[in-house]
Amino acid sequence: MTPRKQVIKNGTFAVLEEGKTVISGYMLIEDDIITYIGEEEPQIDEGTEVMDGSHLLFLPGLINTHGHTAMSLLRGYGDDLALQVWLQEKMWPMEGKFTAQDVYWGTSLSVLEMLKGGTTTFLDMYDHMDQVAAVTKQSGMRAVLTRGVIGLCSPEEQQRKLNEAVDFAKSWHGKADGRITTMISPHAPYTCPPDYIEKFVQASIDLDLPMHTHMSETRNEVEQNVKDYGVRPVEHLLKLGMFSRPSLIAHGVHLTDEEISILAAHQVGVSHNPGSNLKLASGIARVPELLKAGVKVSLGTDGPASNNNLDMFEEIRLAALIHKGVSGDPTAVPAAEALRMGTEYGADSLFLNQVGRLKAGMKADFIALDTDQPHFLPYSDFISHAVYSASAKDVKHVWVDGRQLVKNGACLTLDEEKIRREAQLAFEALLTQ
Amino acid sequence: MTPRKQVIKNGTFAVLEEGKTVISGYMLIEDDIITYIGEEEPQIDEGTEVMDGSHLLFLPGLINTHGHTAMSLLRGYGDDLALQVWLQEKMWPMEGKFTAQDVYWGTSLSVLEMLKGGTTTFLDMYDHMDQVAAVTKQSGMRAVLTRGVIGLCSPEEQQRKLNEAVDFAKSWHGKADGRITTMISPHAPYTCPPDYIEKFVQASIDLDLPMHTHMSETRNEVEQNVKDYGVRPVEHLLKLGMFSRPSLIAHGVHLTDEEISILAAHQVGVSHNPGSNLKLASGIARVPELLKAGVKVSLGTDGPASNNNLDMFEEIRLAALIHKGVSGDPTAVPAAEALRMGTEYGADSLFLNQVGRLKAGMKADFIALDTDQPHFLPYSDFISHAVYSASAKDVKHVWVDGRQLVKNGACLTLDEEKIRREAQLAFEALLTQ
Repeated sequence: MTPRKQVIKNGTFAVLEEGKTVISGYMLIEDDIITYIGEEEPQIDEGTEVMDGSHLLFLPGLINTHGHTAMSLLRGYGDDLALQVWLQEKMWPMEGKFTAQDVYWGTSLSVLEMLKGGTTTFLDMYDHMDQVAAVTKQSGMRAVLTRGVIGLCSPEEQQRKLNEAVDFAKSWHGKADGRITTMISPHAPYTCPPDYIEKFVQASIDLDLPMHTHMSETRNEVEQNVKDYGVRPVEHLLKLGMFSRPSLIAHGVHLTDEEISILAAHQVGVSHNPGSNLKLASGIARVPELLKAGVKVSLGTDGPASNNNLDMFEEIRLAALIHKGVSGDPTAVPAAEALRMGTEYGADSLFLNQVGRLKAGMKADFIALDTDQPHFLPYSDFISHAVYSASAKDVKHVWVDGRQLVKNGACLTLDEEKIRREAQLAFEALLTQ
Repeated sequence: MTPRKQVIKNGTFAVLEEGKTVISGYMLIEDDIITYIGEEEPQIDEGTEVMDGSHLLFLPGLINTHGHTAMSLLRGYGDDLALQVWLQEKMWPMEGKFTAQDVYWGTSLSVLEMLKGGTTTFLDMYDHMDQVAAVTKQSGMRAVLTRGVIGLCSPEEQQRKLNEAVDFAKSWHGKADGRITTMISPHAPYTCPPDYIEKFVQASIDLDLPMHTHMSETRNEVEQNVKDYGVRPVEHLLKLGMFSRPSLIAHGVHLTDEEISILAAHQVGVSHNPGSNLKLASGIARVPELLKAGVKVSLGTDGPASNNNLDMFEEIRLAALIHKGVSGDPTAVPAAEALRMGTEYGADSLFLNQVGRLKAGMKADFIALDTDQPHFLPYSDFISHAVYSASAKDVKHVWVDGRQLVKNGACLTLDEEKIRREAQLAFEALLTQ
């Protein structure tokens, strides 16, 4: 079959290379691959679809490396509460009622919001993961999916859940034209006994898949780990073998210098979730120190009940802003570094080596922002504007694997009205159950 | 003349009252005044214009209590630099070249961005203030305008600037159908000698106008004040008589308990600028302590070169998020309180007693957000969604004094294309001068 060829002319492309962050010119796409980006006009074969990229800023699709998308059904249901009250009185009772159908509509609502807002790849850790996979497949998005398992239950129940996680990981890895990959996830050191975590490490070895978990999100959780196991979470997971596997941990708010060194030495990625960490009052992760130590820091929204939106531009901006304010150093986490955290470092953290960059040879996962707006003027520095001024709503078009999924702000693959209606009905039903 | 009457049906109105934050029902407007908000259908006279408020969330217009709008021309021109480098090598040389025309286009760009983003009132402290007043008048917006004076110059130059500030304040106070009021502003304790500040205090008394200044934005500035005058800035301004006048200070990042008590005792308002304070690495203001002490804390964007947008939803959200993260208390600055900071506390801080609230008897300054969007679902808590999930781009309609200024996202009073073009040309000209 003749490959589908597309060319974008007159575009501004965020290539984020050292010394040159932006290129004005052309991008060629052949099927799902970027084959050229440059200032020089390339040879354009007959039959190539031509798009005018004027007044558009092209970025790599944003990559959300930690979340629980189905929790959008609980957005705004209990804010500004102490963590334990929020969890025990609000989240857990409602989540306990979630059916597969609820997960389907909650995930659909989140996928819609993410896609329209310029996220092209997301990690999801939840239950009823077949539903999440089904939505991902239908939407055209890219995702890293993993059944997050809480192990505070009987050995039989533990085994059932582990089997479920393994079955899911096996059956969906590489599916949806390769857009879905999977990971193995014990939920957290404080919700999984050590011997149970070791079983996940073994499964990760058996399936040759990376691992994901929550770690050191709150100070209490770290102190509890020391009480229960005599060591802090990093040493604990290190001993259990997790860091001998390719791993990504979410949060990593409370880390010592030594723990940062261990994460760096074992190439463990950290998904920084600034919005969620602030809202739940978990604290402020030591991002400048992590980056300095060579740890791969990416960005995640966490679930929409603790954020409360899925706007990755907001996480990028928070990552650029809060560490300046806290450290007193205005050069901490510069704009281009924050944008890399939301794109290429995200791809690296999810073990996806063909996305997260606008570059020949990469998958054509990219987005276009409308720069004909007051907050993008003057045209002084597009990377600065993307980081310090833009939001999800500035995204006009979105492509994954060279296929356009959002056009002029509308999602082409999902039925937005139906999803909003069904999500609202699902929430109302949960309230009355 | 028969008054113009408007009614909005089926709306959701953020009244932000204790115990009841939102009302679903009706709002009546007679000329520039809200005459009714309630669940019950009011009597609707013949000739009343009817608008369907379904799928819209109505909020009081947002109030931005500190900024330098013309600096939008320098948006993205020098980020992520040490403060002194940024000021001395980037901002001051460019600002030194600003003509009245530059201020006109820079302000126009900012007013456009603010209006479209739901801000209905802004404070502006800058130079060439006649231009800012002209733009305000034309746009239909409400503004508190003040010539900010730096006094590091000869006595003759000082006198000339003071006269200019006084003339401006006198001639524009109450103009544009009462939408413009004025203040008296020495720029800051570190840029104005004590005897010069006393002259502004006297002018404020003579003209019966309130005062505005920058104060305690950076740690250095506080230390310098102690070196130069033997006291910290609050005691310094107190001694100079400023706090015997109705006053609003911008920033107030570095304050002791005693200073907070003094501000509270003298009813001095604080314009909290979280985005700018983070970006310039100035630090994090003690907002929970200020609120607890009874200080009126409002929100400002500061200039667009240190923010870099004028999205007041972002400042509201930052105010709700960062103080939770820093204090470790998830109940710090709850959603409704953050929204009040961006609306009614803003009005109080600017000494405007008829805006900032949706309530009978208030001026009809209000905005409507489009809630038919994924990030507003489910319809669990609209105040939470407005604070934790919304952004400037969700604003669909804007009214000031009962007059619609933004309709379906388009500004009805300003020529957006022309403003964007002229602002870009102005920036390019500044670069080549």
